[in-house]
Order: sequence, then structure tokens, then C-alpha cells
Amino acid sequence: MYLLALNCGSSSIKGKLFDLPPAATPADLDVPLNGAATIAVSNIGSKGDKVVIKVSWEAGRGQDVKEEGAEGSTVEHRDIFPILLKNLAGSGGVQGSEIKYITHRIVHGGLNKKPLIVTHEHEEALTEMDALSEFAPLHNHHAVLGVRACLEALPEHTSVLLFDTLFHQTLPRETYTYALPPPELATAIPLRKYGFHGLSYASIVRSLSANLGKPASDINVVVAHLGSGASACCILGGKSIDTTMGLTPLEGLVGGTRTGTIDPTAIFHHTKDPGGDAGLKDMHVTRAELVMNKKSGLTALAGTQNFGLITQRIADPSTCSPEEGAAAQLAYDVFVDRLMGFLAAYLSKLLYRVPLANVALAFSGGIGENSAQLRADVLARLGWLGAEVDAGKNAARAQDGEVVRTISTAGSKLRTYVVLTDEEAQCAHMAREALNI
Amino acid sequence: MYLLALNCGSSSIKGKLFDLPPAATPADLDVPLNGAATIAVSNIGSKGDKVVIKVSWEAGRGQDVKEEGAEGSTVEHRDIFPILLKNLAGSGGVQGSEIKYITHRIVHGGLNKKPLIVTHEHEEALTEMDALSEFAPLHNHHAVLGVRACLEALPEHTSVLLFDTLFHQTLPRETYTYALPPPELATAIPLRKYGFHGLSYASIVRSLSANLGKPASDINVVVAHLGSGASACCILGGKSIDTTMGLTPLEGLVGGTRTGTIDPTAIFHHTKDPGGDAGLKDMHVTRAELVMNKKSGLTALAGTQNFGLITQRIADPSTCSPEEGAAAQLAYDVFVDRLMGFLAAYLSKLLYRVPLANVALAFSGGIGENSAQLRADVLARLGWLGAEVDAGKNAARAQDGEVVRTISTAGSKLRTYVVLTDEEAQCAHMAREALNI
Repeated sequence: MYLLALNCGSSSIKGKLFDLPPAATPADLDVPLNGAATIAVSNIGSKGDKVVIKVSWEAGRGQDVKEEGAEGSTVEHRDIFPILLKNLAGSGGVQGSEIKYITHRIVHGGLNKKPLIVTHEHEEALTEMDALSEFAPLHNHHAVLGVRACLEALPEHTSVLLFDTLFHQTLPRETYTYALPPPELATAIPLRKYGFHGLSYASIVRSLSANLGKPASDINVVVAHLGSGASACCILGGKSIDTTMGLTPLEGLVGGTRTGTIDPTAIFHHTKDPGGDAGLKDMHVTRAELVMNKKSGLTALAGTQNFGLITQRIADPSTCSPEEGAAAQLAYDVFVDRLMGFLAAYLSKLLYRVPLANVALAFSGGIGENSAQLRADVLARLGWLGAEVDAGKNAARAQDGEVVRTISTAGSKLRTYVVLTDEEAQCAHMAREALNI
Repeated sequence: MYLLALNCGSSSIKGKLFDLPPAATPADLDVPLNGAATIAVSNIGSKGDKVVIKVSWEAGRGQDVKEEGAEGSTVEHRDIFPILLKNLAGSGGVQGSEIKYITHRIVHGGLNKKPLIVTHEHEEALTEMDALSEFAPLHNHHAVLGVRACLEALPEHTSVLLFDTLFHQTLPRETYTYALPPPELATAIPLRKYGFHGLSYASIVRSLSANLGKPASDINVVVAHLGSGASACCILGGKSIDTTMGLTPLEGLVGGTRTGTIDPTAIFHHTKDPGGDAGLKDMHVTRAELVMNKKSGLTALAGTQNFGLITQRIADPSTCSPEEGAAAQLAYDVFVDRLMGFLAAYLSKLLYRVPLANVALAFSGGIGENSAQLRADVLARLGWLGAEVDAGKNAARAQDGEVVRTISTAGSKLRTYVVLTDEEAQCAHMAREALNI
């Protein structure tokens, strides 16, 4: 029996297949499930690129697959699932009927405080989730299509919807409230801060808890989850008390293609017909929202959202033109400036409640894991607090299986970690908890 | 000879008349000008209220005036100036021909790094300033009308335009840059952070410098200028290195009627036809900008922007309904939550560069001067930094003429002040500097 954890992006599907213990075994959530295979599908909907499907099996479990499919623009999420099933059966002997549970990461879950369970012909929750697509453009809708495709292909399984907003349902009212009058437009959910990347933050809290040998209720940490989508979270006693993303993932830090927080009036002086429809298929997104979500951020400042390329251009100007070098420096400096503001605000929020000795800082996400330069620059700016980077540990790569690694010195007053996040394992964990499996 | 400092709001004019030393005297900017009279005009354009004109003379200088004029909605800014001149002459014997200089506070000055000088029939700068009205709705346009009215009534005088943006021209590039692509619309100025309340911040730096006996270059302070419009500023060596307001005064803290920073996409889910024209006279302002600037903030949360009333309802629930009490508490908590985020971020920015012993915190503006509760709550949240409020000093009222007063204990590691700001005196000072008078 298997549990499949899926994570549908706008043009990609990531997934992990886990062994499920026999139903007779009492669930012990502290023992993680064995991974059987990892799935990666890319270029869905992408013009000029062929869809690529990869299945990587754990040793002895099957034959790895890398298959090129049809031209991306001719393929939709719903077309992928049958091909995936065929590959899992062909290369590893896993039959569809053996997949009892599928978890789906859904970006926006509105006010839901629990995972939602969906089975074939009991799909009401999906309509509700699709209605939130306007608040997570390019995310919720694709994920909902993914769930529907799975229910069609495997009508016997149980799907579990896990929301990135779940972890932030503990935000206090004064933090999630926007000072807006009652809305003129009908809205599917209240207009407030929801916060995102919650499955990642939950995973990081579990990893820190396991690694430091403390209960989650003793984990007080400011986490910078820095990837193409970047956010930070203030975690007190294992619970989110503040986070940078808001009603939508736009607010807060500068992203690969997102503005982050800017003067909310700026876009009205920037984009023609800002409230007009952007012309996206199947959903209403305004022109302003498309510009701020997809054409801004590091891409707008540096011409690329590749943070490794940005830092390389700064470190070695001979690799680019002077203009590219200057643009890379500005993009990096803007990214750090905004990040420092939130990290300082969140550290202060924790230090009001717990002593510095019980507070930590953690980096995660592609940029957080890979950019030693960024981490060193952040810690230097917190030197006044007693933060001190261990240059050797900071420069080192994570060892195999090293989920939590320390990058601060033994004498640093602010303990600082790099934590590998695992949203798929977190989804599996939360599904087991919800279903008692 | 006199210098008149005017400050035109949307429905009000504040002003101060200063004695000017004879032209033969070398200017000593460290000696402030003598004030001769204070002017306050209210209810301009206000339906159902009569315009009220007050002139208060320094002792022995004239007879105080309080005159009710025509119904507010029939009166424009340009109508006021001749009435004011008549009153100054009638009650204090000051003839219009003796007013050699008039300074005007203008909210948005774009990229200007210096005050602008305007004389009769040399008014090009006014057209430029009026073009910025879209970025300071309800401010720049009225101020420009005020300047024109003065030039018409007193063609011989020299007007000096002083911008609230001037003080923030020292913001570093990474701080003022928004991660936006090139604009689709033509804009009068680059879309970036400008910052406001600059005349107030400049006044506060001068007051702290004089009071503490240090040069401005040794003033490192985070200032919370909290009034109906609220902002904070990070000042290093007397210069602004960060501030909460942005392209327009909307960004940053929650204001009396302003949202402050919210997810920039929120308004597209809130307001009908957000990019449509709000129908304001003489200027284009979108519906979204009107809602976020004039119908939000404390007013939206508490039903009032009167901060004294809000704190009174919290302190004494018997003065209001349970709903009003709960709304007041939420408004207060939201205001403090956002404020603390910026104060912590700015303190961290200073502490990266100078030791805590050389850093201060200052409150100003109506709320900053009057709300001992707010100041105590802010300092409590900075207790981890060694901040300690002196309850007695914090509760005391400012003595007459006490521009800077300390509210932290002698042992507090963060020295904290309340500073009375004086934008009119600051305007006079800057005009003298610009014109060498």
C-alpha cells in the first residue's frame, strides 16, 4: 500500500511515493514513512519545450525513468496523471490500485483550519478551493485540476488537501487584520493576511524539534524561506505569530518575479487598465496582479530570477557586462534590505516574549540553502545582537541526510541553522495525522 | 519685515508670521526668528461649517482675531489669503508689503533636492508641483493653489517651496527601489519610495541636536511621527536612511484614514472598478486610491480616527458600547503591531552601524506627544533591548517651551524622547538657508 504526495505547480508536478504500513499497525507519527520513489514532471503548458517526466526509485525498488512527452503547450495537468501511473507500474511494479491515499499541496486554503478530505463523487471542497484561485493566481486552479485528474484515474483512493495557509491560522487578530473598510465586492473569504509556505514552516518546526530534542512548543525561531517565492515567518512555541505573505503570496519579501510589499498605490501609476482582465485561461486575474506577481521582483531588477547567477555576477564581474553587474548588485541589495527589515521585526517580536538564548534563526528554500553569501551578510547585520557566523560551516555543503545544520559559531548568541524543508513528507505526516493511518 | 510660513492642508491653512532681521544683519541660522503671530484657518470647502480664521499674536504684538467667514463649501483656498492679509493689517498693523517671503510646505517634491524659489510671473515650478498631485492626493494641488493665491495678492514677495520629500533624498538606492518592471504608463517621476513628513523629521533632528548639544551628524534616532498621518524614519548621522511612507504617503503605518502597507493586490478584491476615476475635482485619483487613503485606517477599524477617544474607550469601557470597545482595542493593537515592526527594523539598521549608547528613539506628532499609553507599550516591547520607561516622566505633560523631553529612566539603555515638531519654524529656517537671509 502507498501514499502519494503531490505538489502541482503552474508548469510542474513534484511528488513522493511513500510505503504505507499495513492497516493493522497502530500509527506512530514519530516514525516517518519510507520513501519509495520521487517524481518530477516539468514543462507542462510550456511552449517549445517537451514535457519531461522523471521517476527516481530508492535503491532496489525499481528502474529510474526519464521520459520526454509531447510538446508542453499541448499538455495539461490532467493528461499527466495516467502517464505517471503507467510509469510507476512499468518501472517499479506499483499498481494504481495500491495507491490508497494521495495528498495535494494547495496554496490557498482560506480560513480552513484542517486538511480537507475528498473522494470520488464527493468533491464539493474542490469547488470551494477553486473559488480561491483568484487569491493564488497560477496555483490553486492547477492544483484543483490535479486533484480532479487523480480522482478520475483512481476513483477508489482518498485525496487529502493540505493548505499552505494552515500553519498561519494561529496568527493573532491584530497581525492578520488589514485596516480596510468593508469590501464593495463580494469575496469568497475575508480580506486579511493568510500567509503561505506553511507546509514548509511546519516541516522545519518538526525537523528542528527532532534535531534539537525539544518539543515543538519550545521552538522559537524566525525562518527565512527563500526561494523563487520568498517569505519569512515568526514562530513562537512552534506556532506562527507573524509572516510576510498576506492575502496572497505577493506581500512581503521580493520574489523571483514578485514585487513583495510596495506602496499599494504604485501599480495604479504603473500599469495600464490595472483592474482589467489579464486574459488568463479559466480564471479572472487583473493586469495589475499579473504584473506584480509575474513580471516584477528579481527578474525586473536583474533580468534574471536565478539567485546563483546574481551572486556570481557580483562575485566575478568578468562573467557579465557592467550593466548586468550593477543590476545584479541592486537586486541583491534590495532583496537583503527587505529581508533584514522583516527578520529584525520578527526577532524583536520573539525577544519581547522569550530570552535570546531560546531563540533561533533558520534559512531554508533554494536561496536559503545555497547562498552562503546571503547568510553571512544577514548574520553580519545582526552582529549587534551577538550573532556570529562560522565561516567554515557556512561555506560547507550539507552532508547527505543532514536536514538541520548549524552555521553560527559556538559563541554566537543567536543560534542559526540551515534546514532542508520537505513539503511532501510534511503532507504525508499531516494526512496520517488527519486520517489516523 | 516679515517671513510668513504657510502650510495648506486639504481643508485648512496653518501658518506662522516671523520677524525678519534687517537685511544688513548677517544671517545667523542658529538664532531662530522671533514669532510674531500664529494663523489657523479651518473648514475650507467643508459643507455645513463656516470657515473659521484665527490669528493669535505674541504678547503686545496685536489683538487676537477669531472670525467666522462664509459657508465652507463656497470658499476656496484662493479666497482666504486676501482675508488673512486684511486681518494681519487690522489686528496687528502688519501690511502686506512688509511680508517679503512666504514659505509653503508642499508634500510631494519628487526628486528635487533643494527648495524651489517662485516669484510672480516666474511660476514654472508650480506646474511641475501640480503634476505630482496624483502622488499626494488632496495635498499638492491645494498647496499649489495656495502659492498662486499668495503670488496674486502680494506680487512683490518671494515664495519658497519646501518639500516633505527633501529630507529623504538621502535614502540609499536599495531602500528606495521597488522591484517593478519599467512602467507602462507615463509618469511625472520615477516610481520609487520618496518618504514624507520630512520637514517634521528635519525639525526634530535640529531640536535633538540643540537640546543634546551634539552636531546633527551625531544624531542617530528612530522617530515615530504619529498623527492622523503616521510614519517612522530611521535617521543615521542626522540623515534619513529609511522611512515608512513610499511613492505616496499611503505606504507604511496605519493612519487615521489610510491603510498603510497591505498586500498590494488586496484592493483589487475589495473596490469596484479600482482603476476608475474617483470623481475628485481638478485631479485624477483612482477609486482604489481614494478608498485606501480616505476611508481606511483607524476610521475603518474603530469608526473614529481620534486616537484619544480610542485609548479612552479601552481604558474606560463604560464610555462606549461593547462593540465600540472591541473595535477600539483592535484598532489600537493593529496600530501598535505595525509600528513595532518598523521600529524594530529601523533600530536594527542603526545598531548594525552604531552602538546602542549612541542611538535614541523619539515620538512626535499628536499621538506621539499625547498618548503616554502608546509610548509605554512601545517601550515595554523593547524591554529586551534594555529600554525602560520612566512612568512619571512619561505621564507628565510637556512644560511650556519644552521641545525635547526624556521619558526613559536614567538607566534605560535606549534613550527615549518626546519631541515637539515645528514644521513652520523648520520652513523658515530652510528658506533663510536657501536665500541667505
